[in-house]
Amino acid sequence: MSTGVGGRRSQASVPDLVGRARAGEARAVARLISLVEDESPLLREVMAGLAPYTGNAQIVGITGPPGVGKSTSTNALVAALRAKDQRVGVLAVDPSSPFSGGALLGDRVRMQDHALDTEVYIRSMASRGHLGGLAWTTPQALRVLDAAGCDIVLIETVGVGQSEVEIAGLADTTLVLTAPGMGDGIQAAKAGILEIGDVFVVNKADRDGADQVRRDLRNMIALAERGEDAWRPPIVQTVAQTGQGVDEVVEKIEEHRAWMESTGELDRRRVRRARDEIEAIAVTALRRRWGNVHERTELDALAEKVVAGASDPYAAADSLLATYTD
Amino acid sequence: MSTGVGGRRSQASVPDLVGRARAGEARAVARLISLVEDESPLLREVMAGLAPYTGNAQIVGITGPPGVGKSTSTNALVAALRAKDQRVGVLAVDPSSPFSGGALLGDRVRMQDHALDTEVYIRSMASRGHLGGLAWTTPQALRVLDAAGCDIVLIETVGVGQSEVEIAGLADTTLVLTAPGMGDGIQAAKAGILEIGDVFVVNKADRDGADQVRRDLRNMIALAERGEDAWRPPIVQTVAQTGQGVDEVVEKIEEHRAWMESTGELDRRRVRRARDEIEAIAVTALRRRWGNVHERTELDALAEKVVAGASDPYAAADSLLATYTD
Repeated sequence: MSTGVGGRRSQASVPDLVGRARAGEARAVARLISLVEDESPLLREVMAGLAPYTGNAQIVGITGPPGVGKSTSTNALVAALRAKDQRVGVLAVDPSSPFSGGALLGDRVRMQDHALDTEVYIRSMASRGHLGGLAWTTPQALRVLDAAGCDIVLIETVGVGQSEVEIAGLADTTLVLTAPGMGDGIQAAKAGILEIGDVFVVNKADRDGADQVRRDLRNMIALAERGEDAWRPPIVQTVAQTGQGVDEVVEKIEEHRAWMESTGELDRRRVRRARDEIEAIAVTALRRRWGNVHERTELDALAEKVVAGASDPYAAADSLLATYTD
Repeated sequence: MSTGVGGRRSQASVPDLVGRARAGEARAVARLISLVEDESPLLREVMAGLAPYTGNAQIVGITGPPGVGKSTSTNALVAALRAKDQRVGVLAVDPSSPFSGGALLGDRVRMQDHALDTEVYIRSMASRGHLGGLAWTTPQALRVLDAAGCDIVLIETVGVGQSEVEIAGLADTTLVLTAPGMGDGIQAAKAGILEIGDVFVVNKADRDGADQVRRDLRNMIALAERGEDAWRPPIVQTVAQTGQGVDEVVEKIEEHRAWMESTGELDRRRVRRARDEIEAIAVTALRRRWGNVHERTELDALAEKVVAGASDPYAAADSLLATYTD
């Protein structure tokens, strides 16, 4: 890409890093994600540099309750995708405690099967920024992996509850994993997974009850109202531990992409996602301006007026928005 | 308050409604909360009209896992507070499914003991507005009950997880309920309840294991680092079903208020809360402006540019913020 820069990584320019990431250098990819995670002053330059190269990767969300085999399935999917010569990214997100600010599990030593494969990028991210959810930097990390030439990026959370819904919001295709003994169908429906699943996977299919889980899922999917041209989520049985059924999951992922492209759904999902991203960044920028913690701000003064009964929150919000134009 | 208006509620003016609510008319209180919940065009006028009368009520959050006896405890607290001639408000918040938009449990027929007591306002609110959490209108409903002259407003959620933390964020004083058999102390610590509890209540204290729960809690509280003048959260054992211990809970609530007033903590908490409220209202107003769903917006156009690789989310957010000044 360039001479005399590769050996001094800390001084590498952003265009240089982007070029090296696109050429397949894992350290450059890692460095770019770190710049995103650390909210580096270079972040804007990084995102602008990556933009022209984004849009190729299919973002595949992997959700399911703890114990269903998400990590094992992710690992098996990477193997199946590599066998098809795909460049693969993996983003594993650990939700944080709202109080500690740290990750519950920390960086995991995992997926060692692929640690030496230069066509696989694996990254754990702590989620930060809002309660129990995904960090607002997560979509930017996905962009790095996309621009680095990944054909598929798998995004997986160790989380529970809402994080599944948030994962689906970031993905082009969402895999919902279940397994025998993971709770009944009504629970599944309550958690909203029927709405977010593009492909359902019944893992641990060698165990008793797998066929029942499949039947229950099929019935619930059949009940959901769908339009004529709608995607009908397939159900695949797997034993991720042995790789059984995983190639079929890959096929369904490919079929879903083809369907999305033919119907325009891919663009619709991506525009919706970009809207959310832009909005989140704009709101974060405004919040920082309003709530600078190092000095007494307009917001503090307004809050004190509200507490004193001299103003109300709506009038105060109007004032806050008015000062933004200064 | 006024003549000729009381009989035609739908035409009552806001100042009139506020006056009647302050005079103790339950229907006026209910109507004001409905205006808040429905985000009526009169909302701003309502909040401005209430502002001078806010700041008296002590907002008491009641949290704890499902099955711990939150509703029974709330009921018993209302009885104990009424015996002391306090005007009491109760706000019961039902978290919604992120998909249905409706309440999980709906309005509950509950607390019938107090249904005919004109000095008790009881209201169930569906939570709306953000995933799994409390509605941003909840603080406004608290303001209505505060301005209506309540001495204490109890706010209780049927929710799990994050909603407990959010309740604490709205309260002056947070009661954390636990009971024998509700899970071990490490679970409690993980959920962050040690940080949010101002008063701990071991309910169902007539059951085996209550003393052990108390000892475990005491040890965990003792381990937490606190400053010299810090509040040391007391632990009270109750049997809410019979009312046993509930007067002591009321005492501790009063002691906590006295401590907050003497140290300035009450104002600090309220200013922090007002900041969050103002910010949430301002952000909501901006989001509406950006994301008008009825017409193609600036945000849509920017999102399409990002998807096409012609812009990046940060540059797009800058554009969005720039258009705000128009």
